[in-house]
Amino acid sequence: MKRTTFAGWPCTVARTVDLIGDWWTPLVLREAFYGARRFDEFERVLGLSRNVLTQRLTRLTEEGLMARVQYQDRPPRYEYQLTEQGRDFFPVIAAMMRWGDRWLAPDGPPVLLHHETCDHDTHAEVVCAHCREPLRHAEISARLGPGFPDRHRESALATGRFDDPAMLQP
Amino acid sequence: MKRTTFAGWPCTVARTVDLIGDWWTPLVLREAFYGARRFDEFERVLGLSRNVLTQRLTRLTEEGLMARVQYQDRPPRYEYQLTEQGRDFFPVIAAMMRWGDRWLAPDGPPVLLHHETCDHDTHAEVVCAHCREPLRHAEISARLGPGFPDRHRESALATGRFDDPAMLQP
Repeated sequence: MKRTTFAGWPCTVARTVDLIGDWWTPLVLREAFYGARRFDEFERVLGLSRNVLTQRLTRLTEEGLMARVQYQDRPPRYEYQLTEQGRDFFPVIAAMMRWGDRWLAPDGPPVLLHHETCDHDTHAEVVCAHCREPLRHAEISARLGPGFPDRHRESALATGRFDDPAMLQP
Repeated sequence: MKRTTFAGWPCTVARTVDLIGDWWTPLVLREAFYGARRFDEFERVLGLSRNVLTQRLTRLTEEGLMARVQYQDRPPRYEYQLTEQGRDFFPVIAAMMRWGDRWLAPDGPPVLLHHETCDHDTHAEVVCAHCREPLRHAEISARLGPGFPDRHRESALATGRFDDPAMLQP
């Protein structure tokens, strides 16, 4: 499918959307978090075509979120395992689930998460890594970071969307 | 565009993906978080076609994440404002950005978030709402919740993906 690629944008939301931003990929990851590993498991639960599923698993493997691992010799058979990069996507799915539970679930959450560590039913909360308070949009501003390309810096600052760190120094 | 709809699935990740799961919608929301309100602002920064932008803004308005508000009488002009439901999506974008900064930004984060409340540069962290510890995939199990449809309960439990709350009671 022809589409715009966001991979080169100076925004990691755009890059992430480029990578996972199709309808099936987050659900393939969800199944992996539920424990699916084999092609047939993904296929049975999601009910998508083998062709589309192959594409999604291949993309997730190429991008490093899953690894294709041989689990049987004769005949050779493979399964898909989450890598560290893939497991690290779980908080994004959990944050998405929390939002959906709040706004798209009039009958209550269809699925509950249980945190084995503290032994409580729970949900995701997104907090500030520094002060641990919930991250609210109204209390956040954006600044250009070290990975922002120099050639786009001036035009980005001209949009007024970003504070200029250089101007904030005393 | 013809595609599967996930809106009726007993999973709020699927429902959320159904709603925001196209390449442009999360970026339209990102621009709204950066302060964009008028059609031309979204168009100029994102560089997408007016047709696609109209579709996305209309969908976000219909679904309750944005409100179309008249800001001028003659001629009548409208802008798009985030609603509470829309602003509440910010933590999902912030969690996505954190993952992208970690895995897709070899030159460092292109954009930094600054938490005005505690006056520190920060990033999103997804924690357990109960014990406030980071939510890690390995420490989470899933249970069927109140909003899971009764007619699918038995087959869902048969997959082995969910603990049965009824069986966990003493």
